[in-house]
Amino acid sequence: MKKWILFLCMGMMLQFARAQYELYPTNWWVHMKWNQVQVLVRAPGKDLKTQTASVQYPGVKLEKVSRFENPHYMVLHLAIGPAARPGIVNIKIGKDVVQWPLGSRRTGNGTAFANGATSADLIYLIMPDRFSNGDPSNDRVPGMRDQSLNRDSVFERHGGDLKGVEDHLDYLKDLGVTAIWLNPVLENDMPDRTEHGYAFTNHYKIDPRIGGAPAYKSLVRAAHAKGIKMIQDAVYNHTGLEHVLFRDQPDSSWFHRWPKFTQTNYKDQAVFDPYGSKIDRKIMEDGWFVPSMPDWDQSNPFVQTFLIQHALWSVEEFGIDGWRVDTYAYNDLPFMNRCNQALYNEYPRISIFGETWVHGVPNQSYFCQNNYAIPFKSNLQATTDFQTLFYGIIPAVTQPFGWTEGVNKLYTTLAQDFVYKDPMRQVIFLDNHDLSRFYSVVNEDTAKYKLAFAWLLTGRGIPQMYYGSEVLMKGTTWPNDGYVRLDFPGGWKGDAQDKFTAAGRTEKENAVFDYIRALANYRKRSSAITSGKLLQFAPYDGVYVYFRYDDRQTIMCAMNTNNKLATIATSRFGEVLQRFRQGTDVVRGSRVALGDSLALQPMSNLVLELQ
Amino acid sequence: MKKWILFLCMGMMLQFARAQYELYPTNWWVHMKWNQVQVLVRAPGKDLKTQTASVQYPGVKLEKVSRFENPHYMVLHLAIGPAARPGIVNIKIGKDVVQWPLGSRRTGNGTAFANGATSADLIYLIMPDRFSNGDPSNDRVPGMRDQSLNRDSVFERHGGDLKGVEDHLDYLKDLGVTAIWLNPVLENDMPDRTEHGYAFTNHYKIDPRIGGAPAYKSLVRAAHAKGIKMIQDAVYNHTGLEHVLFRDQPDSSWFHRWPKFTQTNYKDQAVFDPYGSKIDRKIMEDGWFVPSMPDWDQSNPFVQTFLIQHALWSVEEFGIDGWRVDTYAYNDLPFMNRCNQALYNEYPRISIFGETWVHGVPNQSYFCQNNYAIPFKSNLQATTDFQTLFYGIIPAVTQPFGWTEGVNKLYTTLAQDFVYKDPMRQVIFLDNHDLSRFYSVVNEDTAKYKLAFAWLLTGRGIPQMYYGSEVLMKGTTWPNDGYVRLDFPGGWKGDAQDKFTAAGRTEKENAVFDYIRALANYRKRSSAITSGKLLQFAPYDGVYVYFRYDDRQTIMCAMNTNNKLATIATSRFGEVLQRFRQGTDVVRGSRVALGDSLALQPMSNLVLELQ
Repeated sequence: MKKWILFLCMGMMLQFARAQYELYPTNWWVHMKWNQVQVLVRAPGKDLKTQTASVQYPGVKLEKVSRFENPHYMVLHLAIGPAARPGIVNIKIGKDVVQWPLGSRRTGNGTAFANGATSADLIYLIMPDRFSNGDPSNDRVPGMRDQSLNRDSVFERHGGDLKGVEDHLDYLKDLGVTAIWLNPVLENDMPDRTEHGYAFTNHYKIDPRIGGAPAYKSLVRAAHAKGIKMIQDAVYNHTGLEHVLFRDQPDSSWFHRWPKFTQTNYKDQAVFDPYGSKIDRKIMEDGWFVPSMPDWDQSNPFVQTFLIQHALWSVEEFGIDGWRVDTYAYNDLPFMNRCNQALYNEYPRISIFGETWVHGVPNQSYFCQNNYAIPFKSNLQATTDFQTLFYGIIPAVTQPFGWTEGVNKLYTTLAQDFVYKDPMRQVIFLDNHDLSRFYSVVNEDTAKYKLAFAWLLTGRGIPQMYYGSEVLMKGTTWPNDGYVRLDFPGGWKGDAQDKFTAAGRTEKENAVFDYIRALANYRKRSSAITSGKLLQFAPYDGVYVYFRYDDRQTIMCAMNTNNKLATIATSRFGEVLQRFRQGTDVVRGSRVALGDSLALQPMSNLVLELQ
Repeated sequence: MKKWILFLCMGMMLQFARAQYELYPTNWWVHMKWNQVQVLVRAPGKDLKTQTASVQYPGVKLEKVSRFENPHYMVLHLAIGPAARPGIVNIKIGKDVVQWPLGSRRTGNGTAFANGATSADLIYLIMPDRFSNGDPSNDRVPGMRDQSLNRDSVFERHGGDLKGVEDHLDYLKDLGVTAIWLNPVLENDMPDRTEHGYAFTNHYKIDPRIGGAPAYKSLVRAAHAKGIKMIQDAVYNHTGLEHVLFRDQPDSSWFHRWPKFTQTNYKDQAVFDPYGSKIDRKIMEDGWFVPSMPDWDQSNPFVQTFLIQHALWSVEEFGIDGWRVDTYAYNDLPFMNRCNQALYNEYPRISIFGETWVHGVPNQSYFCQNNYAIPFKSNLQATTDFQTLFYGIIPAVTQPFGWTEGVNKLYTTLAQDFVYKDPMRQVIFLDNHDLSRFYSVVNEDTAKYKLAFAWLLTGRGIPQMYYGSEVLMKGTTWPNDGYVRLDFPGGWKGDAQDKFTAAGRTEKENAVFDYIRALANYRKRSSAITSGKLLQFAPYDGVYVYFRYDDRQTIMCAMNTNNKLATIATSRFGEVLQRFRQGTDVVRGSRVALGDSLALQPMSNLVLELQ
């Protein structure tokens, strides 16, 4: 009895101690390759400079303690040996005992999780706050800075959450989606503009307004059960102004400090320019992205480890499959290589692509695995392919055809792919949360829109679409990017329209939805598209013909960017067509004979599986 | 006496034999590295299939005879051993004896000739027919197909010649020119449009209408005496329809033949596109450039040797310093590598740059020495840098400033230089014989024009200007390229104006002439520009600042592309300016103090040597 009371008291004390201490990472696992863990300890009310620390746990050794100018912090360097078994590691700090769980590893590395998005996938980008409100109870969370909840303002919170995503997995699966990329899910306890999620305030908390860690785990589990992969949005470059590590900094070397606020110059050139100035590069890399987002000093080894461990922790904790890395060019690139490598080491099939909102194939390819023999070599698998967007599909559908204009640009940009190590890993897209919605870009012309989607779903690389594109959601970044982040109609109980159902969509919307759905589901089964090669012919007269093929299947894609019917002679494509007599229009299901010529509807992409 | 008569008769017979035989190369030299010479013998009236051939000359061995379907031809494979001495090689063909001179090598390889153009040079491109008529006696040459002589037509011959160029070497030297690139000087015995020189009809004849070989040798000698290098224009890809080897082809494998006339598609992409079709590439490489120019089949080893030997022969025969290679991308690139290598082997300091009228730094850099780890690697030193023209200086002076527009393009295009092995070898230019003259491009705005010239003469690479640009010659390629090939005023006796003299030029022309002359002569002496490095800062508000520097000298170039005065804070350039207190305006000679700010005149490039 006495013993029981003692245990209870000890338990209460430990709970108290735990409450006073923050540990990052909050927990770890045995048998990780990353087994030298630096646990950052924060205890706001304590003076950790004077406290000793010790660990008594079989297989776990405290190798070193690092201390900082700020007495609230220490770092415990823990070596987790092969003999360590799952359990609670009791860490003694001064007189306190802090518990640090050591778990068993998640099973299915590279199959059940960390499975990597490939060109076989269709990625669907969702802003959790704007997709669907599955759990109205978390719309406002007491104690958080942003208490807005106002669907009438594009700047304020709308209440969407991870449960809302989970509720629509069947919808997405039916559409043909095989991977979901969520805008960042980490806590963003900022005073405003929290809808996008890029201002983390705690790396080890999933934002409670979208459901917190339980909802995230539930979503990942449910998605995996339906064969849908999950991609997390990483932000290594900066964090939110209200991040605990910025508000209460360990020392002056964790964030880039400037005599006065200095914004990045957004000049990716400054990073690779052989003639670049020191100051341009420094401002590019060390300037803050925006005033509300402090820039991590990634030359600080503690910062490096903090960020790398968080990445590994996220995969193991939640079971995600891949990463999209925000503002890739702004990071310290050698550090990014180490970070990526740590993920590759731990999760060999994981996929990572970086956002590179740049202009020029040389620019973009510098930041990922490429064929340059130059001193700095990125190990990033691929990037968000802004080049095939800006200098490809947008000109193809908005510019008159010319030697270097119109659909010729799509051809000429792809021809530059020889600079990439594996262009099939590039993530191609028509729009995202930072860009005008493509339906608005094409002035709500569904013919152009379908043509572009046909390219997206048959083009080289990994296609990514943006939530609601399938139901013709529109919006431009003018006057501001909030207008490309509107709610998915039907995502909220009581919405006047429910575009998640055919009945709730207009005829026009259904026509586009069905078109995308048909191609997206077709591509799932198509070896030529998902893992085959590309063969392209130089466009003439606004018509661009390309093939996707492998040993088993050949698909002809004939894109007519003219506003009138085009008839093309098939003889030019003899090196492919000689083996075939007819094709099946994969959208309509109709047979098309391969005669001397082929008629192409105005502004359309005919996709034919050849027989 | 008898013996003397016998010798005379033999001499006459030999002369007769020589007249019946054409030998290519016409002559060769002892101690060349290229000492396995294939002499193509043509004897239109003979049946060489049945003739034996033999050579009796110490050190020269006839190793093999190749014969062709066409009995007019044979190839003698001659090995010229180290023991061979200069003299006349008598080649016995059947009963005839043909003489083939073997000379001593030209002295001064890499110093007196084959000296290579570098970034220390200023290249001046001249169309001999349109620059100056130094010898009216050769304006029309009896027996040649084009008997036009009409300065009123841009399509017809005007009578300019090599003597005209030689007559103005002092003018060019005074202007600051250090190298002359002539439009092709080989015989173009075509019926019309012979002014440009790209339709060779005999590789071993200098066109008699520009003075033939004697005038060419005289010009090269005179230019060298004044320290001016000579660059020859090579055309390996095609030849003229009236070329002797096309009119009377050795067999069917010397030129690309098509069932019906097939023009190249001009798609450089087809060469490097990882997804390119076979037919696009074949049409690109094997299609004819224009109907009047048959396309050599460079897969034929005899064609290869013919072209390589002609290149080597030209350097040794005339003493030129470098090559500009026409339509580089249309050639068989592995063959071009062999051809370039033969020249590098023989003339280690020679320079070679190729014309690559393409769009995109990846495209252009594919064709020269680059930093790509890809299967095909070009050994071409550099290209005509259309990228810094189209996506650099033209936007800089014609587009409003923007994130990817205006002078930003000059900066962003140069930042992509990391793909080149040696970007300082790129040949930069504002115009040439195929492009609208830059003065017309800038709508005859001398401020923009001077700004562009300041960039040309301080930028990275080898600057090339076009004849008459210094006196504001104008013209556009619309309605046709003849209008950018007008005569240099004063180049013909009796011209109403003589722009070769200050007195003949208007005030405006003299202002521009003097500006170019000042910078061109300044750059000659400037180590920072001719062999130093480039440092550039990202442009802001239409102002682009770059530095040229080495250990001895630093030059600041501040380009204001606005139509109004700009004042820039100097603090941003501290990493360079901290070592200096003032600068000398290298054009005006005035001193400029380096205070906190620097005032820049509207649309101008201030060039300051820093002290």
